[in-house]
Amino acid sequence: MSISKAKVRFIDGLKFIGTADSGHDVVMDGPVAHGGTDSAATPMELVLIGLGGCTGMDAISILRKKKQPVEGFEMNISGTRAEAHPTRYTDVEIEFVVKGKGVDESAVKRAVDLSMEKYCSVKATLEQHAEVSFSYRLEE
Amino acid sequence: MSISKAKVRFIDGLKFIGTADSGHDVVMDGPVAHGGTDSAATPMELVLIGLGGCTGMDAISILRKKKQPVEGFEMNISGTRAEAHPTRYTDVEIEFVVKGKGVDESAVKRAVDLSMEKYCSVKATLEQHAEVSFSYRLEE
Repeated sequence: MSISKAKVRFIDGLKFIGTADSGHDVVMDGPVAHGGTDSAATPMELVLIGLGGCTGMDAISILRKKKQPVEGFEMNISGTRAEAHPTRYTDVEIEFVVKGKGVDESAVKRAVDLSMEKYCSVKATLEQHAEVSFSYRLEE
Repeated sequence: MSISKAKVRFIDGLKFIGTADSGHDVVMDGPVAHGGTDSAATPMELVLIGLGGCTGMDAISILRKKKQPVEGFEMNISGTRAEAHPTRYTDVEIEFVVKGKGVDESAVKRAVDLSMEKYCSVKATLEQHAEVSFSYRLEE
């Protein structure tokens, strides 16, 4: 068991800055229609992007170990959201696109399967229940 | 029902750049121990940060409607990860810290409760099952 920590601070409007264990800041903002200034990705966008980064890191690492001549690699991700509040993701589709002359299809299949079935922690977080609890305190 | 889309592209090492509907880029990287250069937040960090941004946007909007004199607002988030692969989040705790002389505690409680129980789409995504499916194709 390990613990990951993040601090997320309000800036102004709907702008927030988050910092987690790696120390790198991530800015978020909301659309103008909701009172934001559309200056950065939204929180729900971070979830889709994080899913892509997570499985992408797995897959590229495996393809590298298999010495595949990958020249390009990207994912097209599509998330269907619920209509009523909370408008969570109900279904997410990922299309992996691997470019490179001579890349072995079975190596790609194996890399993607291993990430999706075994390693990708963001995918597993989306598919299984995580208990979210909360508390609050006021400071003057 | 609405669809959100994201494209996540491999750069080098473990570095990926994601772009979703808002058009803003988010860079991700992995730790040096896993072959990355630790130049940006990790995918799992984005999930925790996104959770904070999502509930923070809800709560600050509600506090603003209630005309509360909020001078500072931040969240401390702690995610417990599974020990075995996939090391998903199993439990997440959020501490909301609201600063401001004269902020009404009942308004804070109401704002946080409304986000957590009704509006926060990232929280709902973590707590309920989302189906993740995938496909792949090779390009020369």
